[in-house]
Amino acid sequence: MTPILTVVGKSDSGKTTLIERLVPALSRRGYRVATVKHDTHGFEVDREGKDSWRHKKAGAFATLIASPFRLALIQDVDEDPSLESLRERYVRDVDIILAEGYKRSHHPKVEVHRKELRRGLLSTREEGLLAVVADEPLEAGVPCFGLDDVEGLVDFIERELILPSRRGEERLSLRVDGKVVPLKPFVEKFLREALKGMLSSLRGCERGGKVEIEISRGEGDGGALT
Amino acid sequence: MTPILTVVGKSDSGKTTLIERLVPALSRRGYRVATVKHDTHGFEVDREGKDSWRHKKAGAFATLIASPFRLALIQDVDEDPSLESLRERYVRDVDIILAEGYKRSHHPKVEVHRKELRRGLLSTREEGLLAVVADEPLEAGVPCFGLDDVEGLVDFIERELILPSRRGEERLSLRVDGKVVPLKPFVEKFLREALKGMLSSLRGCERGGKVEIEISRGEGDGGALT
Repeated sequence: MTPILTVVGKSDSGKTTLIERLVPALSRRGYRVATVKHDTHGFEVDREGKDSWRHKKAGAFATLIASPFRLALIQDVDEDPSLESLRERYVRDVDIILAEGYKRSHHPKVEVHRKELRRGLLSTREEGLLAVVADEPLEAGVPCFGLDDVEGLVDFIERELILPSRRGEERLSLRVDGKVVPLKPFVEKFLREALKGMLSSLRGCERGGKVEIEISRGEGDGGALT
Repeated sequence: MTPILTVVGKSDSGKTTLIERLVPALSRRGYRVATVKHDTHGFEVDREGKDSWRHKKAGAFATLIASPFRLALIQDVDEDPSLESLRERYVRDVDIILAEGYKRSHHPKVEVHRKELRRGLLSTREEGLLAVVADEPLEAGVPCFGLDDVEGLVDFIERELILPSRRGEERLSLRVDGKVVPLKPFVEKFLREALKGMLSSLRGCERGGKVEIEISRGEGDGGALT
């Protein structure tokens, strides 16, 4: 199941900025990220006058805009959907969901804290607080990362949330010169199944298990497929 | 399965305007409508600078905006999704899907035609043309509706697409003073199952079948529950 991490913090603490930095850092490691923004006041998302805006304005329950590159769905809901229901219904093929807000949910939380804002944290360990990102040292009983230590936080997220969620799940990862090459789900599955098919008739490969393949042309010049 | 009707026509023939008129007319009859706008060029949907816009811009594969009233999803796709895949993946609890564009799909089509545009129609009966909406009489071998005959077209859509799609499907409809009262799916199911539960132990109701209940206080003053 795709893990959910909520980013919480007081107003103007820098929640969106942290998400803006986490998304590319996670993507560089080959992870696909979905984000959720909680908006308690309702919102307008489409642009006035556009055909799709006119569809929705006319009273459509749901309006989709589809293109070869991007898809958008705008629809009415009867109640504020939970993160679980959003994950179940709308999120597929991603490795982690980062949600901004939802401080009352029970999902693991990272809290952003700045010393110029009122003292104290919003969340406690009992409420799921997993780590703090702050511009001053804090005693919260959880790991504390500096505002610029995005890689440290990503290491932590990977170890605490992404890798445990994958246990027992078959995955192919590709590294070239030590760097993860992001693979689209289709490509990942295609490569994985094709390789498994090729290996299945080889003696010693009948029972499956962890496969590591390395292709190299000489030291420091090649790729490893694990 | 939710029926799909595509609205096709030359540029500026009035496709969006027709959808803007069909949606409320269908809603007044108690139907829930989803619309799809096909955009071959890609599109921008969110508003620059908003938190959700920043999430997507940072490279999120998918971004959701959730509120108690409305939900939006913006996500990347690898290829132009078909109407079937959109229906299967994103559309639930609606009675009909109206799609603007998709003239090459095999779904039933209504073509909008105006005489000031070049002569002739885009679609043929063989390609799924079901009806024409035009400002001049046309010989297309299918019913032709005037631009203002929205109710006539809705009668036709109801008869040809919505009602056939519901055959065999259990539904409760509520009319008060002859007017359909739109029911949210939860309420519709709740009422239907509660009523069936109450009736199930009555003699003569064991085998189910069409139930019609009428409550009236006197002529022209009451409601009928069928």
